[in-house]
Amino acid sequence: MASWLPIPIDSDFSLQNLPYGVFSTDADPTRRIGVAVGDHVLDLKVLTREQVFKDIKFDDSTLQEKTLNAYAGLGQHVHSQIRKKLQELLRDNTLLGHVLRDNHDLRQKCLVSMQSAIMHLPVTVGDFTDFFVGLHHANNCAGFLKPGADITQVLPSFWDIPSGFHGRSSSVVVSDTPIHRPKGQYREGGKPVSGTCRDLDFEVEFGVVIGQPSQMGEAVPVDQAEGHIFGFVLLNDWSARDFQKWEPSAPFTCKNFGTSISPWIVPFEALEPFRVSPIKVDRPLPDYLMQKETKSIFEVPIRATLEVDHTRYAVAECNTKFMVFSFAQMIAHHTRGGCPLRPGDIMGTGTMSGPTKSEEGCFLELSRYGEQPCEMSAEGSSGERIRRTYLEDGDIVEFAAQIRTKDGLENVGFGICRGEVLPAN
Amino acid sequence: MASWLPIPIDSDFSLQNLPYGVFSTDADPTRRIGVAVGDHVLDLKVLTREQVFKDIKFDDSTLQEKTLNAYAGLGQHVHSQIRKKLQELLRDNTLLGHVLRDNHDLRQKCLVSMQSAIMHLPVTVGDFTDFFVGLHHANNCAGFLKPGADITQVLPSFWDIPSGFHGRSSSVVVSDTPIHRPKGQYREGGKPVSGTCRDLDFEVEFGVVIGQPSQMGEAVPVDQAEGHIFGFVLLNDWSARDFQKWEPSAPFTCKNFGTSISPWIVPFEALEPFRVSPIKVDRPLPDYLMQKETKSIFEVPIRATLEVDHTRYAVAECNTKFMVFSFAQMIAHHTRGGCPLRPGDIMGTGTMSGPTKSEEGCFLELSRYGEQPCEMSAEGSSGERIRRTYLEDGDIVEFAAQIRTKDGLENVGFGICRGEVLPAN
Repeated sequence: MASWLPIPIDSDFSLQNLPYGVFSTDADPTRRIGVAVGDHVLDLKVLTREQVFKDIKFDDSTLQEKTLNAYAGLGQHVHSQIRKKLQELLRDNTLLGHVLRDNHDLRQKCLVSMQSAIMHLPVTVGDFTDFFVGLHHANNCAGFLKPGADITQVLPSFWDIPSGFHGRSSSVVVSDTPIHRPKGQYREGGKPVSGTCRDLDFEVEFGVVIGQPSQMGEAVPVDQAEGHIFGFVLLNDWSARDFQKWEPSAPFTCKNFGTSISPWIVPFEALEPFRVSPIKVDRPLPDYLMQKETKSIFEVPIRATLEVDHTRYAVAECNTKFMVFSFAQMIAHHTRGGCPLRPGDIMGTGTMSGPTKSEEGCFLELSRYGEQPCEMSAEGSSGERIRRTYLEDGDIVEFAAQIRTKDGLENVGFGICRGEVLPAN
Repeated sequence: MASWLPIPIDSDFSLQNLPYGVFSTDADPTRRIGVAVGDHVLDLKVLTREQVFKDIKFDDSTLQEKTLNAYAGLGQHVHSQIRKKLQELLRDNTLLGHVLRDNHDLRQKCLVSMQSAIMHLPVTVGDFTDFFVGLHHANNCAGFLKPGADITQVLPSFWDIPSGFHGRSSSVVVSDTPIHRPKGQYREGGKPVSGTCRDLDFEVEFGVVIGQPSQMGEAVPVDQAEGHIFGFVLLNDWSARDFQKWEPSAPFTCKNFGTSISPWIVPFEALEPFRVSPIKVDRPLPDYLMQKETKSIFEVPIRATLEVDHTRYAVAECNTKFMVFSFAQMIAHHTRGGCPLRPGDIMGTGTMSGPTKSEEGCFLELSRYGEQPCEMSAEGSSGERIRRTYLEDGDIVEFAAQIRTKDGLENVGFGICRGEVLPAN
């Protein structure tokens, strides 16, 4: 889909993407809903007021809110129509395209340069659930959780249940929010110590933002579960490994000090072309997890880098294709007992490591539980190298993901999910 | 404190209490904030509009909202002034008391009979955290979690860390909301089975609702932590024990299908006279958990009963005095790494069992992990008895708590925290 609006070839934001975010500008500090296109943000509040969506039946006040929750809750049938309308508006050689292209005033009002957009948390997160469905991460971590064990010895239900735990929603923040190194408790020489985290880690995760809600007492059938997805984000589940080893089994202070998400929510439809089948595992599954759709997961390569003193180092090349349960299965399991979903809820996958060393999505794996410093090379030709067991103050962790349509013409990306480690308060 | 408004001697709602709730009536279905007094609910929205609080400096739009979040967030200095004003308004022999007592029109507008009040969830719960700080519950459950073990073998950090996990906020419901028996996974004969929960349980818990928020990156000092409490509720943490044994370590589907809270939030100040010291345990504590206030917990007896076929059976007499960490310590630990608190967040204590059989606050303990049916007697003189290992469909679980001031004249209670078990959907 070619646009009359110049979209750089390497941009994350082609017409196949059109991700949603919440932004403001210095000139107008009101938070408003926008869609990313090339180097611009399209202001949906302005377009709504200009009656651009008037032939679509939906509550258009939802596009004039300061978060995406209400709009996400309308469900995919609305999002799909709005998406089509936006593509029509931005494409070359369409009647509607000319309406915007040739209307200088309207363009001035609704197109904001990406550079001047200040991004905010796109939804109020009701609940954040973190799963643990990455095959290689699970295998690599088993020994951390229980020395010498494989994953089914640590979690006997690993292949039967999409393992998950409730996370903290109040500390989910948008990319570029710095993260203070947390204080807490760890054990040293067999004794509990209260102090500053020494083993601070990141985790490369993929996440969904829930759209259409479900009611309390309602189990969402696995084949309808995808209908509850509004879109996708990159997610960094910052982790204090020393706290994790000492605190009771469920992750608590080792993870609740911060979780970063990318500023743009990639719509469900935008990832449709990138479906793949999960690893085939010969195992019986209960009915409620038997999904008709065989291409039930998505292949999204996520690249993690570390910026240290203005130099960027390659850390890991992860991929979401190593999930052993799909988002649909996670949702079906999550709601099986009647737990309700609300628009804006987030579900993460757990770390999306691949099978080789360069694909490991956290330092826990890369440094073998902190015992073997991991060496990383600078991008470009400088040849600089750096060693890390865990994160140091001032380190900037950055995730990016860009997938290209088969014709090679359009990218779907998430913008950057970034966070700087600040010293402890 | 005597009131011109007749307050029955056994009422939960004396002038020492004045708990907050959100109610509506058939005549006016708008949700609004009220305070319970005897057999009445005092409509704070009406009082606010009538300028009753005009000499108190605060954002009075917060008392015209449909939930208590914004008002809770104003902090205790505001709540304290409003409380004094309400007591003055309701007490006998005060100038302000006569203002309301003698104003028939205003009384008609602002006093609603408790019977006609329909109670709603008083806050939008941002995050629900469930702790595990009940001494006897921990000891009694250790063997369930790990056969033959004591609690420090199961949780080595039990005496060092207020153990807690993130719960699900979307399924926190107000008393009288029925709970459907959940479906999920359990293990039978060593094999996973997908089906309806057979071991459905309740848990007698005590909870706080957070008022004054804290910022991300801010550790709340333990001696300032009580200032973040808006008030207290009774809490039933429904649990599927068969799911709990099979699913990964952190409670997930075994608890996220429903959590009930009492409709009334008892203000922090109302419980001041009921402070006690926790069990003295000779253990070192890290600085951030060293609390100056020695009477750091509250003594609230909570009575659990079961209603079966219109007969009420005594189940357990629990008490909150068996907490091994105070709410202040829980808050200090929770925020230690910078995890922010939001108004309306809820923190539960875990089951508040006492040392004897009749004080055990869940069937897991009462029936020795489901192996010895527990016999319960009907209230009154009928002599009827009933046996249960776990809950059956149609059972109604009810918690109540009433404490009396030393002079024996005023009660502080929470109303009822009740829920009926409905068959699986």
